[in-house]
Order: sequence, then structure tokens, then C-alpha cells
Amino acid sequence: MTIPELQWAQVAEKKGGALVYKQIPVPKPQSDEILVKIRYSGVCHTDLHAWKGDWPLERKTPLVDGHEGAGIVVSKGSGVTEFEIGDHAGIKWLNGSCLACEFCRQGDEPLCPGALLSGYTVDGTFQQYCIGKAAHASYIPKQVRLDAVAPILCAGITVYKGLKESGARPGQTVAIVGAGGGLGSLALQYAKAMGLRVVAIDGGNEKKEMCEKLGAEAYVDIKKSKDIPADVKAATPESLGAHAVILLAVAEKPFEQATEYVRSRGSIVAIGLPAGAVLKAPVFNTVVRMINIKGSYVGNRQDGVEALDFFARGLIKAPYKTAPLKDLPRIFDLMEKGEIAGRYVLEIPE
Amino acid sequence: MTIPELQWAQVAEKKGGALVYKQIPVPKPQSDEILVKIRYSGVCHTDLHAWKGDWPLERKTPLVDGHEGAGIVVSKGSGVTEFEIGDHAGIKWLNGSCLACEFCRQGDEPLCPGALLSGYTVDGTFQQYCIGKAAHASYIPKQVRLDAVAPILCAGITVYKGLKESGARPGQTVAIVGAGGGLGSLALQYAKAMGLRVVAIDGGNEKKEMCEKLGAEAYVDIKKSKDIPADVKAATPESLGAHAVILLAVAEKPFEQATEYVRSRGSIVAIGLPAGAVLKAPVFNTVVRMINIKGSYVGNRQDGVEALDFFARGLIKAPYKTAPLKDLPRIFDLMEKGEIAGRYVLEIPE
Amino acid sequence: MTIPELQWAQVAEKKGGALVYKQIPVPKPQSDEILVKIRYSGVCHTDLHAWKGDWPLERKTPLVDGHEGAGIVVSKGSGVTEFEIGDHAGIKWLNGSCLACEFCRQGDEPLCPGALLSGYTVDGTFQQYCIGKAAHASYIPKQVRLDAVAPILCAGITVYKGLKESGARPGQTVAIVGAGGGLGSLALQYAKAMGLRVVAIDGGNEKKEMCEKLGAEAYVDIKKSKDIPADVKAATPESLGAHAVILLAVAEKPFEQATEYVRSRGSIVAIGLPAGAVLKAPVFNTVVRMINIKGSYVGNRQDGVEALDFFARGLIKAPYKTAPLKDLPRIFDLMEKGEIAGRYVLEIPE
Amino acid sequence: MTIPELQWAQVAEKKGGALVYKQIPVPKPQSDEILVKIRYSGVCHTDLHAWKGDWPLERKTPLVDGHEGAGIVVSKGSGVTEFEIGDHAGIKWLNGSCLACEFCRQGDEPLCPGALLSGYTVDGTFQQYCIGKAAHASYIPKQVRLDAVAPILCAGITVYKGLKESGARPGQTVAIVGAGGGLGSLALQYAKAMGLRVVAIDGGNEKKEMCEKLGAEAYVDIKKSKDIPADVKAATPESLGAHAVILLAVAEKPFEQATEYVRSRGSIVAIGLPAGAVLKAPVFNTVVRMINIKGSYVGNRQDGVEALDFFARGLIKAPYKTAPLKDLPRIFDLMEKGEIAGRYVLEIPE
Repeated sequence: MTIPELQWAQVAEKKGGALVYKQIPVPKPQSDEILVKIRYSGVCHTDLHAWKGDWPLERKTPLVDGHEGAGIVVSKGSGVTEFEIGDHAGIKWLNGSCLACEFCRQGDEPLCPGALLSGYTVDGTFQQYCIGKAAHASYIPKQVRLDAVAPILCAGITVYKGLKESGARPGQTVAIVGAGGGLGSLALQYAKAMGLRVVAIDGGNEKKEMCEKLGAEAYVDIKKSKDIPADVKAATPESLGAHAVILLAVAEKPFEQATEYVRSRGSIVAIGLPAGAVLKAPVFNTVVRMINIKGSYVGNRQDGVEALDFFARGLIKAPYKTAPLKDLPRIFDLMEKGEIAGRYVLEIPE
Repeated sequence: MTIPELQWAQVAEKKGGALVYKQIPVPKPQSDEILVKIRYSGVCHTDLHAWKGDWPLERKTPLVDGHEGAGIVVSKGSGVTEFEIGDHAGIKWLNGSCLACEFCRQGDEPLCPGALLSGYTVDGTFQQYCIGKAAHASYIPKQVRLDAVAPILCAGITVYKGLKESGARPGQTVAIVGAGGGLGSLALQYAKAMGLRVVAIDGGNEKKEMCEKLGAEAYVDIKKSKDIPADVKAATPESLGAHAVILLAVAEKPFEQATEYVRSRGSIVAIGLPAGAVLKAPVFNTVVRMINIKGSYVGNRQDGVEALDFFARGLIKAPYKTAPLKDLPRIFDLMEKGEIAGRYVLEIPE
Repeated sequence: MTIPELQWAQVAEKKGGALVYKQIPVPKPQSDEILVKIRYSGVCHTDLHAWKGDWPLERKTPLVDGHEGAGIVVSKGSGVTEFEIGDHAGIKWLNGSCLACEFCRQGDEPLCPGALLSGYTVDGTFQQYCIGKAAHASYIPKQVRLDAVAPILCAGITVYKGLKESGARPGQTVAIVGAGGGLGSLALQYAKAMGLRVVAIDGGNEKKEMCEKLGAEAYVDIKKSKDIPADVKAATPESLGAHAVILLAVAEKPFEQATEYVRSRGSIVAIGLPAGAVLKAPVFNTVVRMINIKGSYVGNRQDGVEALDFFARGLIKAPYKTAPLKDLPRIFDLMEKGEIAGRYVLEIPE
Repeated sequence: MTIPELQWAQVAEKKGGALVYKQIPVPKPQSDEILVKIRYSGVCHTDLHAWKGDWPLERKTPLVDGHEGAGIVVSKGSGVTEFEIGDHAGIKWLNGSCLACEFCRQGDEPLCPGALLSGYTVDGTFQQYCIGKAAHASYIPKQVRLDAVAPILCAGITVYKGLKESGARPGQTVAIVGAGGGLGSLALQYAKAMGLRVVAIDGGNEKKEMCEKLGAEAYVDIKKSKDIPADVKAATPESLGAHAVILLAVAEKPFEQATEYVRSRGSIVAIGLPAGAVLKAPVFNTVVRMINIKGSYVGNRQDGVEALDFFARGLIKAPYKTAPLKDLPRIFDLMEKGEIAGRYVLEIPE
């Protein structure tokens, strides 16, 4: 396999400035790294935040965005034992971490103060050749399609992690807020595969049909419901409320409603990172009902392996549309306008 | 033992109206109940809320307030096997529960929809003879002083429960907000007895001395500190923040500070029920650092046994002043003005 | 509903002596009890042990055996709030417990020193009218068939509990030893419903077909395998072994094999009570691989509710044959000879 | 700091053959390794097994034994960020692991199939200069004495890990079998520091005194007791037995006794690796009482940090005698004869 000196990439030369599709040098892996020839990369809302730079977290400039990249290992450092040349690999948001700090030692690599973030603090997957730490890159079995798996590498793992964090056990009921969206439909499928019962919350008949098809036991339509908390509770055993709530649309109103319809002792898991939003919970209700409010970030390495395994077994379908890498600006534009249904996966030119 | 027909009690005849010290009938235990001749009863902030009726939770009227009562079993129902006449017993906030619902089945009796609350939905311990469900009353070993144990029955159990809920393990660091107060000094002692390290947060030199004497490793003075989160973090291993925060002063500012100095993956446990307060957490920080915000209510039956056991082993000292039952109005008055240091224990006339 | 004075019952007048089918008085419920008109009762291996009296645990004499009874509430004590007359109810092995001891307080009612055992320390379900403590009897929704649900009341709950105790998480692999038997096929279905992957271990092609039909990913035939541990490991991810083993055939050889093919850090859950058997584990392997060996007894009340809920949702099918109550001696005879495939459910005469 | 070419070491040239005290080359650290100038090294029973080669686990030959070494970092690989030259560091049994396999990803590095074991599969600490993987070596604060800390690096961490694995919570009772020995006295102190109550089990008055001085609430003398299980139970709350048992003397008889006096739902943690021993548990008791039998191996990296932190805070004292490195053969001899009280720490020549 010949590796060129130069490659095509989408480069954000300054925060929020225009994306430039141009040629840049192909990086070389250090001793603990692999170089992955990216074939497909999902486009995530986070990429939009990264490009715009509106999060309270420093990023690299200039930046190659992207963190849901699937491809082929074409080169590796001298110390790498996890991958062979020719293996399929995925590059995730968490590109690397120190593996030695208190967080890494306990399997919380996403909390590592020295974490490297793909498409944020290091260059990401919107380029032809991308670097990843071998200990963090995902091993992808050959029978798994590289385009289909791309959205799993961030969206899939993230919702799977949120479901694990919720503490809901098989047979219990989880309410998914935003179940009809991209993240939501993944969450719904993972929940079913984990033996959970789902109350889907979203708006409109089209989403209702999809949620029911994917196995939701009930659908609460926020456009029609006159009392969302009451309707969610009515859909749960003994009307006691959902054992857990997965909050994919983290905004004030849905969060407040969740504090009402979550079961006593239940948990509300907030996923997603709207810039500047605030959670508000009434103290009395939270204390007397012993509610648990948790933030869930991306998965750790083991979560990644597990989430991919569910996918590889055919239990998860993530609908997506394919577009060429050069179309990224158009996709960001649609995303900002909220006009994307499902997920875009970029095809990276060979 | 002769049980009289009438007894002295402090009666709240209507919400917030004057307390009337008068004679009322002595109740008779049903088959699953004990009648306890109360010798001492602690006075808790909750009693003040109950009297005033300012919580969003329906209460009984007229009401005998009080839920930290220690005394002697003088009569019992036909089905009671837990107590013998003459045993010492404690009456707690949770007077009884159904023992059969989903919450009771899992040891979460405080969440039982049919819970009976002493001094709130049933008459409490500010009277000479008080009824309690045998399955819920606390067994008090004879060598334990009835005056000293009274504040443990609510305050002690509550902070112990909060520490358990925090998930902090022996050797980890817990920050206690309000460590110099009545609940706080109990929390500090329980934390030490549980093998935890404590950063005490409160104001003033007097409280500093007390906290250090009780074993706090560090004291952050909110009256002097220029950056409370920074100072708390500096007092924790590797300055990574406290593994858990016990929030006894639940107000907006201390809560927001706690979200800054809690360790990533740590928990903030809110105890205490200020009427109408709201918790606010920034979404970004909560999610990216995987913070866990929990409400902790009173303990269940097992928590009660455990908290009393720590006390009976001499590991917990709760400073208190004694006053006669008839002085209750004066004590409520001091409490409203915030002029009580430590806890009052009422001596009930024989 | 008229309740007669006398009823038909199968009575074991002395340990191991002949069963006598005769009329005995109908008992009357105490204040916390219900009287259930039994319509169907499963026959469990435990009933055989109870009749023969070969366990190291004292039983009642004379005894009405049986602990998988489903029927209709026809009378109830004055304190019962859990059931109405006419409700459907199930009587389980755990007929009652004190609800106040250390074990009951923590949801471990099966460990209560004062536990009442149906068909062992109190009369069971091989009679027309059976007493149960209301707090322990199972509520059965009207749409659930009383004959089909009978085996769930002991066999179903027991294997469900074992799976919970195993600690295996959705997506992990559990090996079920004896997967083709009565308990085993239930365990296999519960495991699937809980999101677990199953390696079935049993003997013969007929059982292979059944296991695969019920969703096992692999089948290890103990009659054909030349190296059972190796074959089980080969059927697990990365050949690292099963995350948990459910041991329904608790004998020395299968147990020793399980210590070899269980994953490091995995658990072996022993269910079932052969009189006098012993587990043997090599210390070196157990320690170095941090294996966890657990005994799992019957479920608690909450486990019962959950196991029934899986059944009521149609996820579990328990094959059974029906026979009249008077045929019990014949069924015990078949059971002793090991000639029963599937479970017998007795139809109780009206 | 000048590093010589040659160094003194105790070399086991073949399994069980004579130890040779001689000069060998000083090794050079690879990119992820540190070179530690060992100042002190504890002598553990495992070293004896390693030298004799009587465990069913392949070892290196020739071998420098030893895995409780404390010293100074004198050189490091290019990729090492965890240590600076001059830092104090400890080398433990677990010298290194892959940090990428399923076990490492979940904080179970001791179970890593690629684990490197000091003084077993790689050369250990009975030499002047020893190699360790930086991610696994223990950071030792400068104020901690290097001789005193040596036994903590294996014995201390191992018993601490066992106590964590036991699941016993602060306030619960743990029985320690062999509490008066070297491991036992450490276990007793860690247990106390973790808020646990201790029943010490050992033989003789001298050990009784020591155990009581270290804080045991009760001492059961195996030389005097006529019914060890009964005596242990009598020393626990409500005579229900110990919540957990730490079995440092893993032999058949003590194990069988532990299955009798452990509380229902309690755990028996086996630590220590006698060659060829077998655990036997009666099935009936194990299942009906839901006993949990666990093997606990050495700690992971985080356990190491935590165990050292307890020591650094002055809560643990490990009595030891010092001897020069050349005396190792004599110490092995005493160890085989069972004539060592407390632990030997070798002083390594500068």
C-alpha cells in the first residue's frame, strides 16, 4: 500500500471561517499510533460546534474536523500490537488519553485531563489519512460495512453509554426524549437490544410510526399531548413513571418535564452539549423523590467495543445518506437550519 | 405500667397558628403498632415547616408535631413481634409504610406512596404517648441515653443516608457544605467513622476549630475565601476535587460552586428541603465531567439501624441543649430567627 | 363465592410415606393473609425433596406439598390491602416472611430466619384452598393464563433471579448448563429477553434444536464434545470464556468444568439443591482469575413481580403437561426415575 | 547520577536450585519504562514459590526474584511522563500489562493475558537496578520511608484489594482468618481504616494481644475455641455471622468453617495461593444462604494508589525486620520452616 505525501482535507482555517477543501501533508504515526485511510466519516452536531468554536473548551486551529471515521490501517508505530496493516479501524471523538491518570486507571478515559479529541484538539476524519492512538481506535470486523458503521462510532456509542449510565435494568422502562431523531432512533434500538422497554417522546406522526416500528411500547406526541408528564406516566407500569429518562434534547422545558415523570429513585441522563444551556431542578421534588440527574459524555474504550458488538450482530440500524467529502459545507448549512433527517456519512475520495 | 386516658401535648390547631399546650387523649395501638412513652424528642427544622405548613405536601390538622422521639414501649398490638413492653424505642419521620409496594419491596420505604409521616400526616413526638408502626420504629439498646440519641433519629440517619448515597468509598474525600452546623457536625463524624476524608466548608473561626477537632483535614472559610472552588480543590488529592459533596445548605450559590469543585464523575448530594428552592447546573460541565446530582431524603429502616449502631458504638457525639416540652414555641421562635447553635432536645414530662 | 368447610388435598402424612388424597378442613386467613382457590399448581423437584424429607431443613408433618399455585382470591384478612376478592394470585415457595429483620429490610426475604415455606413449613398448593401472606403472594393480571403461569411462580422466578445474581450485563455471554431441561429452557428465554447472549450446554440433538430455536447462539453437546471447556470458550467473544455460568445441574463435574470456561472475573451461579452435594474449586485458578462462585436461591418479592412481567409480556413460554391433582403420586414416580420432559401442572378440582 | 554497567543480584539459575549472589548487567529502560535503583525490597511468600517453581504458571529462568521494591528513578524511556528522574517509585508484582485488552480496559490489569510479573516472568527487585513499566510503577511521595513502604507494595495492596472485593460496607463486620500474621495484621489495620469492624481469628495469646491493640473487637482463638463458627457468630451483630470473611490461610478446614459463620448473603474472599489446594463448599448451604465465594488476586493500579495513600496518611504500620540482600537464602530457609514472625525487608547495597 503506497501512502502519498499529500492528501485532500476539509480545513477550518479559523473558528467559524469558511471551510477550505485543499491538499495538506499526510501525517506519520508515532510509536503508539496508527494511520487510518478513512473511507467514510459521519457528520455529527459536535463537528458543527467544533467548526464554529462556540464551546467553552479550547480547540486546535487550523482544524480538520470529524470524529466518526471508518477505514483501513495503512501504517502503524513500532509499539503497536492492537492492529495489523490492512485491519479495519474506527477513529472516535476520543483519539487518545494518557492511560495512567486516576480517570484512565478506572476506565474513565473520556475524563482524562490529557485526552486528545479527534477533530477538536487533533485533526480528525474529514481527510483521507487520519492518525489515532492504537489503544483507543476501534477494531472493526471485516464483515461490517464501513459506511454503515460510521455513525455508530460516535452517535451509537454515546447513546449506548447513556443507557448504561442510566442504571435501568432489563425489563424496566426508559423514556427517550427525542426518540424520533438520529440519536434517538439509535437509543431506541440499543434500549430494545438491552432488554429495556421504551416510551418514545417526540413530535408528529412520521416519528410515531418510526418509533413504533423500532419497538417503542408507547409514543407521547409533544405536539398533541396536553399533559406530557401525565401521558408518559400513564405509559409506565403502575403509572409510577419511567425508571430512567434519556434526554437527547437537552433544553430547559423537557428537563423540567422529565423531573416530573421520572420514577422516584429514577435517573435523568443528559446527553448532548448545547452551548450555554442550564439544567434546573426543583429541590423539594429532587430530594423527596430521590431523583438522580447525571451527565453522560462519550463512551470509554470498553463501551466502544460493546456498542460496536451490538451493531455487528445486526441489532442496530442507523439510517444515513451518503455525500462526497467536498459537500461538507452544504451539510453544515442544512444542519444549522435543522433540515437534516437522519445522519450524513461522507464518502472520502480514494 | 399504667397508661393514662389523657396526656399533655403541643398541638398545632391550624397551619401556622399558635401552638396550644393542652391535654388530649392517649391513642391506642392497632395490631401492628406500638405505643411509646416519649421521654425526649429532638426539634428539627422540618417541625417548623410542618407547623407553618409551607411545604407542597398535604399535612394533618390539628397536628402534634415532632419526629425525633425516644422513649419506652408501654403497649403494643397483637401482631407485634419486634418489641417487648419495656423496650426502648425511637419514633422517626417515617412512622410507617405499606411494606408491599414497589418501593417498599426494594428497601425504599421513604418513597412509599402510602408512607405515614410522624408529626406531619400522623401525630408525632411532641406528646407524652406516641404511636408508631412496629416494623418502622427503631430499637434502641438500653445502654444508649434517650436524650442523646434523639437527634440521631432524624438528623443522624439523614446525613448517614446522604453519605451512603454519595457513593464515596473509604479513603475518598467528601466536601461537606455547612459542616459547622448541627447536621454538618453529624455528617462530619459519620464521614470519619466511614473512613472518608473530609473537607469542611463553613464560615468563621469557631466553626473552623470545631470541624478540625472533629477530624476535618481541611477547612474552607466561606467568609474569607476568595475562590471557594479553587480552595476546595486545593485541599483534595492531586487538586482534582472532592469525590462527593454533601450539600446541607441547599441554595443556589453553594450548589453552583459545588458543580465546580466536585471531581469529574463525582456526586453532589442535596439534603434538606428549603421551600421553593431550585438547583441549577450548567449542562456543558455536567455532561463533559459526568457529574451526578442526587437528592437524598431520609433513611430507610436499615439505614436507621446502621446509623444508630455507629452512635451506640460511641463514634458520634451530637451536642444538644435540653428544654421542657412547654418551651416549644420559644424554640421555634429562635429557630426562625436562626439563633440556635446545636440542637434542642425537649424533655417530655412523665 | 361460597367457601366449603372441607376440601380435597394430597397429604404426606409422614416423610416419604404414601401420599393420601383426602378431605381436610379449609383454613381461614389471618389478618394479613389471603385464601386462594387454587386452579393450577406446577410440580417442582423441590416438592419431591419435601415429600421425602431428605433435605437438612426441618419440615411440617403432615404436609400438603406444592408451591407453584395459581388461583383466585376468595377470602382475605382484615388488614389486607394488596388484593381484592376475585383477583388472581399466585402462591410461591416463599409464603411469608417477617418483613422486619435485617434480611427482609434489605429485600432478601428468602433469607429471613422466620420465612414460611409453602409446601414445606406451611401447607402448600396441592389442595383446593391455600393460605398465603398477602405481602408475598403474586398479583397475576387477569389476561394471564393460570395454567401457563404456574411454573413461572417457582421455576421462572428462580432462573430469573439467578441471571440477575450473575451480574451479566446486556450483550455479555452466559453459559447455561442444562439449557435443554425445564429450568434451562426458561433460563434461556429469560436470558434472551434480558439482552444476554447464550451458549447452551446439554446433551443430544433434540435439545440442540430446541435451544437454537429459543435463541442460543451456540450449543455444546456434552455427549459429543471432546473438550467441553474448550468448546464453550470457542463460542464466546475472543474465546475468553463466558461472563457468567448458570449451573442448573449442580454436580461436581459440571462445576469443575465451569471454573475452567468461565471468563476471568466472571461468576458461576449455582441454582438447585441436590441433597448432600459439594462444590470443589481449585484455589489457584479461583484466585488468579478472580472467579466469583455464588449460590442463588429463590427470588424475593420484587424478583417475582419482574419475572411475571416478562411472562405477561409474552416473552417466555414454558411448555407443560396438565394432569389432575389425584395423579401426583404417578408424577413423583416419573420424576424420581428422571422420565419427565418439561413440567407437569396439576389441575385442581373445583 | 551515574548508572553502572554491572550490578549485584540474587539469581535463581534454575527452579529450586541454589540462589547465586553475583554481578549481572544493568538493564536499560525501553520507551515506556523506568529504571529504579532499588533501596529496599520486601520478601513475600510468593518469592519462595517463584524460586521453587511449584506453581502451575510458567516462569522465567534464570530469574531475579522479588516484587516489593522501593527505590529511586534513575533513568526513563522517551515516552514516560509519569515519573521524573529522582522520583521515588515502587515495583510491584504486576510489572506491566498491555493496557488495551478487555481486562485492562476495565481496570483489571492483573487479569491481562499479557501481564508481566516482577520476579516471575521478568526480573524483579532482588537486584540493585530494576525495570518497571511507567504506567504500572507506584509513585511514592518523598515523605514516605522506603523501607517501611516496601511490604505495602504487595502485601498491603493485596489485602486492601481483598477487603474491597468483599463488598463489606463501613460499619459491617469482617472476620479475618490469620489476623495475627503478617498479611493479617495489615488486613486488620486496613479494615479499621475503612470503617469496618473486625473479628480476628488466629491462635495464641500473643496474637490476641496484638489483634486487640490493632483494634479488633473480638478475637477467636483457634487453639482454644471448642466451636469456632459459633464463637465467631457470637461476636457479630445479632449473632448473624460476619458480613465478609478474609481468608488469608486458604486451607480446607478454615474455608469450611467460614461457610458456616459467614452471614447469609455474605462473601468469603480467598487470598493467597497455596499450590494445589482446593475449596469445598456444601451446595445446600451455599445456595440457600446465597453465599458468595470470591478469589481476590493482587490489586490493579488504582488499588495500589489507594492502598499507598492509606499508608502515607499514617494509618497502617507494617512491622518488619531489615536484612542485607545477601541474606536472602537464609530468609527463604526460615520462611519454609514457618519461623518468620512479621516481614523481612532486604536492604539493597548502594
